[in-house]
Amino acid sequence: MALSAVASAREILTRLHDVMAKRLPAQAKLNAVVNIIGEALDSEVCSIYLLREGVLELFATRGLAQEAVHVTKLALGEGLVGTIAGNVETLNLDEAASHPDFAYRPETGEEKYHSFAGVPIIRRERAVGVLAVQHAAARKYDDVEIEALQTVAMVLSELIANADLIDVAAAGSGGTTRMQSTAAVRVSGFRIVEGMASGVAVYHQPRIVIEHTVAEDTEAERHRVYAAFDKMREQIDRMASQAEFGVGGEHDEVLAMYKMFAYDEGWSRRINEAIDSGLTAEAAIERVQQRTRMRMREIDDPLLRDRMHDLEDLSNRLIRIVSGQLGTAAQMGLRQDSILIARNLGPAELLEYDRRRLKGVVLEEGSLTAHVTIVARAMGIPVLGRVRDVKKLIAEGDMLLLDVGEESLFIRPTTATEEAFEAKLELSQKRRAAFAQLRGEAPVTADGHRVTLMVNAGLRDDVAALDLTGADGIGLFRTEFQFLVSATLPRQQDQQKLYRSVLDAAGDRPVTFRTVDIGGDKALPYLNHDENGEEENPAMGWRALRLALSRDGLMKAQARALIEAGAGRTLNIMFPMVSEPWEFEEAHALFEAQRTWLASRGRKMPAEIRYGAMLEVPALAEVLDILLPKIDFLSIGTNDLTQFLFAADRAHPRLALRYDWLSPSILRFMKRVTMEAQAAGVQVAVCGEMGGRPLEAMALLGLGIDRLSISPAAVGPVKAMVRSLDRAKLLEHMENALVRPQGSLRESLEGWAAEHSVELA
Amino acid sequence: MALSAVASAREILTRLHDVMAKRLPAQAKLNAVVNIIGEALDSEVCSIYLLREGVLELFATRGLAQEAVHVTKLALGEGLVGTIAGNVETLNLDEAASHPDFAYRPETGEEKYHSFAGVPIIRRERAVGVLAVQHAAARKYDDVEIEALQTVAMVLSELIANADLIDVAAAGSGGTTRMQSTAAVRVSGFRIVEGMASGVAVYHQPRIVIEHTVAEDTEAERHRVYAAFDKMREQIDRMASQAEFGVGGEHDEVLAMYKMFAYDEGWSRRINEAIDSGLTAEAAIERVQQRTRMRMREIDDPLLRDRMHDLEDLSNRLIRIVSGQLGTAAQMGLRQDSILIARNLGPAELLEYDRRRLKGVVLEEGSLTAHVTIVARAMGIPVLGRVRDVKKLIAEGDMLLLDVGEESLFIRPTTATEEAFEAKLELSQKRRAAFAQLRGEAPVTADGHRVTLMVNAGLRDDVAALDLTGADGIGLFRTEFQFLVSATLPRQQDQQKLYRSVLDAAGDRPVTFRTVDIGGDKALPYLNHDENGEEENPAMGWRALRLALSRDGLMKAQARALIEAGAGRTLNIMFPMVSEPWEFEEAHALFEAQRTWLASRGRKMPAEIRYGAMLEVPALAEVLDILLPKIDFLSIGTNDLTQFLFAADRAHPRLALRYDWLSPSILRFMKRVTMEAQAAGVQVAVCGEMGGRPLEAMALLGLGIDRLSISPAAVGPVKAMVRSLDRAKLLEHMENALVRPQGSLRESLEGWAAEHSVELA
Repeated sequence: MALSAVASAREILTRLHDVMAKRLPAQAKLNAVVNIIGEALDSEVCSIYLLREGVLELFATRGLAQEAVHVTKLALGEGLVGTIAGNVETLNLDEAASHPDFAYRPETGEEKYHSFAGVPIIRRERAVGVLAVQHAAARKYDDVEIEALQTVAMVLSELIANADLIDVAAAGSGGTTRMQSTAAVRVSGFRIVEGMASGVAVYHQPRIVIEHTVAEDTEAERHRVYAAFDKMREQIDRMASQAEFGVGGEHDEVLAMYKMFAYDEGWSRRINEAIDSGLTAEAAIERVQQRTRMRMREIDDPLLRDRMHDLEDLSNRLIRIVSGQLGTAAQMGLRQDSILIARNLGPAELLEYDRRRLKGVVLEEGSLTAHVTIVARAMGIPVLGRVRDVKKLIAEGDMLLLDVGEESLFIRPTTATEEAFEAKLELSQKRRAAFAQLRGEAPVTADGHRVTLMVNAGLRDDVAALDLTGADGIGLFRTEFQFLVSATLPRQQDQQKLYRSVLDAAGDRPVTFRTVDIGGDKALPYLNHDENGEEENPAMGWRALRLALSRDGLMKAQARALIEAGAGRTLNIMFPMVSEPWEFEEAHALFEAQRTWLASRGRKMPAEIRYGAMLEVPALAEVLDILLPKIDFLSIGTNDLTQFLFAADRAHPRLALRYDWLSPSILRFMKRVTMEAQAAGVQVAVCGEMGGRPLEAMALLGLGIDRLSISPAAVGPVKAMVRSLDRAKLLEHMENALVRPQGSLRESLEGWAAEHSVELA
Repeated sequence: MALSAVASAREILTRLHDVMAKRLPAQAKLNAVVNIIGEALDSEVCSIYLLREGVLELFATRGLAQEAVHVTKLALGEGLVGTIAGNVETLNLDEAASHPDFAYRPETGEEKYHSFAGVPIIRRERAVGVLAVQHAAARKYDDVEIEALQTVAMVLSELIANADLIDVAAAGSGGTTRMQSTAAVRVSGFRIVEGMASGVAVYHQPRIVIEHTVAEDTEAERHRVYAAFDKMREQIDRMASQAEFGVGGEHDEVLAMYKMFAYDEGWSRRINEAIDSGLTAEAAIERVQQRTRMRMREIDDPLLRDRMHDLEDLSNRLIRIVSGQLGTAAQMGLRQDSILIARNLGPAELLEYDRRRLKGVVLEEGSLTAHVTIVARAMGIPVLGRVRDVKKLIAEGDMLLLDVGEESLFIRPTTATEEAFEAKLELSQKRRAAFAQLRGEAPVTADGHRVTLMVNAGLRDDVAALDLTGADGIGLFRTEFQFLVSATLPRQQDQQKLYRSVLDAAGDRPVTFRTVDIGGDKALPYLNHDENGEEENPAMGWRALRLALSRDGLMKAQARALIEAGAGRTLNIMFPMVSEPWEFEEAHALFEAQRTWLASRGRKMPAEIRYGAMLEVPALAEVLDILLPKIDFLSIGTNDLTQFLFAADRAHPRLALRYDWLSPSILRFMKRVTMEAQAAGVQVAVCGEMGGRPLEAMALLGLGIDRLSISPAAVGPVKAMVRSLDRAKLLEHMENALVRPQGSLRESLEGWAAEHSVELA
C-alpha cells in the first residue's frame, strides 16, 4: 500500500471526479469508486457502507464477497463500522478482531484480513456512511493514508447525496422531517428565562452544506480562500469596536482567540495544502477542520476544548464567507414555530426575529445578566443556557421541546414525551385562560380592600399588557431596555418618542419611569466603561445611579426626554440603587435643573413631577427618617434587595434555593420599611419577582403593603389570590407569625392560605 | 545586494564565528565584522555603533569615512541610530534624510547614501548598539535582508560582550549598579497591599542572558530544542492540575493560551528555521521571539498584546529549560533588601523568600482577592499590582522605591526622589517607634474604662505580634491561611499542630479561631469547585459556612483538629458568613458531634468551648432575637458587612471612597446590633479594618463597643487614641449625633476629637 501524500490524493480526486460526471447508475458509480480507491491505495479490500433506514448497509465492495452487498447490515454502534458511524470517528487498527467492538459477519469472508481502517462519510456533521479498507497483513495505516481516506470520504459524501443514495432527510435538510435514525435525547442546561415551548430547531447562523468538494480550478479556489481570509480578518477587527458581540469579559476573550486563529499562519497553510490536494475552498476548510477536530479529540483537555469551539465558529464563518451564504435565520424568516439555537445572541439580534413564531431560545453560553436575557425575559421568550454539544446533538429542523423550569431540552422527543409535555403546557395555558377571565375584575380583597396591581415593562410593546391584564398602570418602566437593545446611544428624540408613546398607550393609568440602571453587569458597548477595569462583583459595582451621577450627560438627556414626553401629564420618576439620601438629592436637583431650563425655553411642562427612590440597598433603610421627607414615593426592589440582605447572588442556582423570600429577615426588614414610610405619609410599592408569586404577594399584603408592580403574566394569579383573601385576618396572622418565628414562614403561610381558602395558583 | 535567505545567513554566521574565535584585538574584530557583513550583503556601507557612557559611538565602518570612527557620537534618541537604540526597534528606509529623526553628521560623508537600514544590538532586552547598512540607491531592504541583519546583530551582541567593548553594567548585570543611560521613571499601579519599601529589583524568574549564539553543531541544537519543547509541554500539562498558578478564571485563560502556543506548529517550525541558519537553540528561540515582537508591534492591538505577553512568558520558559537555568530567585537567595517582580505569584512561592530581605512585591497582574494578596497582607509586605511593561522598564538590580499608598513605583529614582521617600518612610517609622513605647501600657480610656484590643492573625508567625504590641489576645485567627498557602489539603495533624502552637504561644491570652472562609473568590486549587461554575459575584457566592456545611468533611476534620489542639484550655470557635440562625445551629451541632466522638475515644477535651457567630450578612441582624440565645459571643465583621450594606464592592477603588465607614447607616446598624446583643448578655466584638483606624475605632467606642480585633500595626495608634479619650463624653456625643445626621459623621467626629484632645495618628 503506497501513497505519496498529496500527489496521489489529487490523482484519486481527479478519477473520482470523472466517475461523478459520467451518466451511470448510482450502484455502478459506487462500484467504480471502490475500485479506484482500492487500486490507488493498493488495498486488498475497499468497502462502502451507507445509512439506509437507520442501518448501515454494505453498498459496494472490492475484495469482500459480492454476495454480502445489500445483505450485510449493521446498526449504529454495532461492529467497527457501526462504531465509526455512531461516534463519527476514524478507526485505524492493525488487528481488527481484537477491538472490543468487532462483530464478525461470515457472509463477507473478511476473516482473512487483519488490519482495518475506516472513516465516516459525513453530511451535515452526521455520519451517513463509512468508507473502510482492509489488508491481510497486520499493520497500522500511516497518517498520510488515513488523511487521503478522509479526503475521499468527503468527496463521496457529495457523490452519494447527488446520486440520492441516502435519505437526504436523514441528514436534517430542514423542515419538520424527523431523523428516524437518531434517538430521542434529553439534555440539561441552565435556567435563564422560565417557560415552556415547542418548535423546530433553527440555527441562528444556518450551517452550510458543502455542495462541491472537487475543484475544477485549483488556482481559483486558492484565490477564493485568500479573499475570504481577508474578509474574515476585516470582520473580526471590526467586531472589537462594535456591538455585534454584546459586551463583557468573556467576549473579549473570544475575540482575542478569534484574532489569534484568524491570523494563524498554520491554519491558512493547512487549508492551502488541502486545496493543493484537489478540494474546493469550502471542502478544504471543512477538511482541515475535521482533521483538527480529530487531533483535539485525542488531547481531550477542557481548556483546549473551549478554544476548539472558537476555531469551529471561525471555520464556519470562513465557509459562510467563501460560499457567500452570510445571512442569519432571522433574515430568511421563520416559517413555523421555532426554537432558536445559537452560541450567544445580542439583544438586537433577538429582536430581529418574528415574535409570533419564535417560541424559545437555546444558547451554548448565556448568563442571567446578559442583555439578551433581559430582553428575552421582557418578551416572555423562554431561554435555556449553557447547553453543551448542541451542534452535535441537534440538526436543523429537529423537533424540540423546551421546559426551562425543569432545565430540560428534549430533542426529537418520543410520542410519550411529547404528550406529557403537551398536557403540562395545556394545563398552564388553561390556567392562563382562567386568569384572563379576571381581566375586567378589580383586585379587591374579600373583605373589601382595594389593592393596586401594576405591571413591569421595558419595551414599547409591553404596554399592550396593560389592556390584556387589566392592570392599574406601569409600576416600573425600565428605561435601560432601549439602551441595551440599541447598538448606539439612543438619541434624545428617540427616547422622548418612546416615553410619549408609552404614556399615550397607558392613557389615564400611571406610569413610573425608572432612570437607566446600567453599568456593573449591564455595560453598554458604546459607552466606555474601561475606567473601572473589570469588576469582581458587578452587582455591587459602579452601576445605576452611581454611574449616572458621575457621567451626568446621559442622565440630563434622559431627564429632558422624560420631561418633554410628560407635557401636560403627571410624570413619575424613580431613581435606582439609591444608597444614601444625597444621591437622591443630586438626581432630583439634576432633573429640576432640566425642568427649569426647558421651561425657560417655553416648552410645555408636565402638570406634576413626582420623584421616588428605589429601596434596594440595605443601608438606605437605616436613614429613612432623612430620606422620606424628600421623596414622593418609595419602591422596594426585591430582586436586588434580597441578594444584598443575604449576601447571596440571585443568579447562583444553589443560593437562590438557600434563602427564602419568606424568611423572617426579609419580611421583618420590609415591614419596618413599610411602616416607617406609611407613618411619614409616603406611598410604598414593591416591584420585583417576589410580588409576582401568589404566596409571596399574600405575605406582602400581610405586611401592610398594597401596591405591587409585577410581570404581566403574574397579574392573573395574584389578582385571583387577592380576590379570595380576607386581608384583616391575614394582617393579624402575620403580626403574630413574626414575633418568634422558627425559620421561614413558607409552610405556615401555605397552611394559613389553605385554611382560609386563599386561591394560590 | 543579493542574499539568498537562510543559506547566506548561515554563511555569514560561519565567517563571524571564525573571527570571534581568532586572537585579535577587539577593534580588529569589529573591523573584520563590518567587512564580512558588507561583503555578504553586498552593501556599500556597514557600520557598528556601540553604547559607551550612555552615548552611541561609531566603533567600526566599511564605507563611511574612517576619520569618523570613535568621533561620531549620538545620544539615545538622536538621529536614526539613536532612535533605533532608544526604541529598540528596526528602521528600514528608502530615503533616510526624509525621516523626521534623521540627523546629518558631515564627518561621515554619508550624504551620498539614500537608503538606510539599522537594527538594534540587544543585550538583556536593552539596546547596547546599532548595526546599520546604507546604500546609494533609494530602495527598501527586503524582509529576508532585514532578518539576516537581525540575526547578525544577535551574534554581535555576544562578540561585543565577550570583547568587553561595552559597559556590561550598563546592561543591568545585577548588583546595585545603576544604568547611567536610563532616566528615572515613575510608573503607577493598583493598590493591593499598602506600605512603602525600597530595594533592588529582583525578578522572580531571573532572565537568561544568552552566552552563545552561533551553533557548533546544528543537529545537536535541534535536539536540545525538541527536548525542551517536550519538557515545556509536560510542565504546562501538569500546571493545569496543580497549584503553581494559584487559581481563578484569568489563570485558566493564561493556561489555555500557554497550551495553544506550546503546541503551535508554526512556532516550533520558525525556531527550527532559525537553527538552520546557524544559531544555537537559545539564540534561535530569542531570535523568533524578537521577530514576533516586531510583527506584533505593527499590529498594535490590545487584545493581541495580552496574548503576546503569554508567548513571551513561554518563550522565556523555553529558554530557561534549554539552558538548564530553572530556579526562581528564591532558590538563589536574596542578598540585599529586594523588591520582587513577577507576573503573578502563588502564596507558597511568596513564602519561599527570606522575609527579612523581601521588602515589597510588584506584579504585572494581581488582584485584591488573590491568595498571594491575603498572605502578603498578613506578612506586611507591600504589593503593587497591574504594573505595565515592567520587563521593558526595569532591569534586574535597578533601584526601586515602592509607595503603594500613592500607587507609585519609582525606578532608578533621582536623589531628590530618594530623599523625599526616605523622609516619608522615616516619619512613619518614627511614629511606629512611638507606638511601640505603648506596648506595656493597658488600653484604658482617660476616664478609666478598660477596652480590649486584640489582633487579627492567620500565620504561625503572626503570633509574635501579641508580644510586640502587647495585645490582649487574637480576636480573629483566620484558619483558611493554612489552606490557601498549601498546594494540597492540609492534613488534620498539620492543622492541629498549627492550632496548638498558636495556643501555646498565646499562653493565657484568648484566641478565637474562625473556621475556614473559602469558596467564592477564595477557591482552593485542590478542591473541586466546578459544580458552581464561575460565579458572577463571588463575594455573594457559595463560600464560607455555605460551602463548609454542604461539604462537611473538611469542617469535621477542622473541628477535630481544633478540639484536640484545645485540650485543657478554653477554645473559642467562630463561624463566618452566618446568614440565618439554622446555619449556626448546624455548624454548632457538627462541632459538638465531633467533641462527643473524640470524648468517647478518651481524648483530652478542652475545658470549655465557646461558640460565636460572625455578623457580616445584613439579614442576620433582623433575627438576633432568635440567634442570641444560642451563641456565646458575636463578632461584627466590618469588611464584608459594609460592602453588603451598601451593595458596594470594597475592592472597587471608586466605591471604596463613595460610602464612608462613618456614615449614619453603618453606625446606626452597628449600634442597633450592639445594644441588642448587650441587652441579651452576649459579648460583642468588631473585627475588620474599620476598627484599626483611630477615628473609626473612636466612633465604635462611641457606640458602646469595647472589644476590637485589628491588624497588629494598628494596635499602637488605636491604643494611643483610647488612652486619650473621655469615653463617657463620647457616648453622649454620639447619641446626639445619630439622631438627625446630615451625611457622614466624619467631619463632626474629627472636630470633636480635636476639641477633646483625642490623639489620632
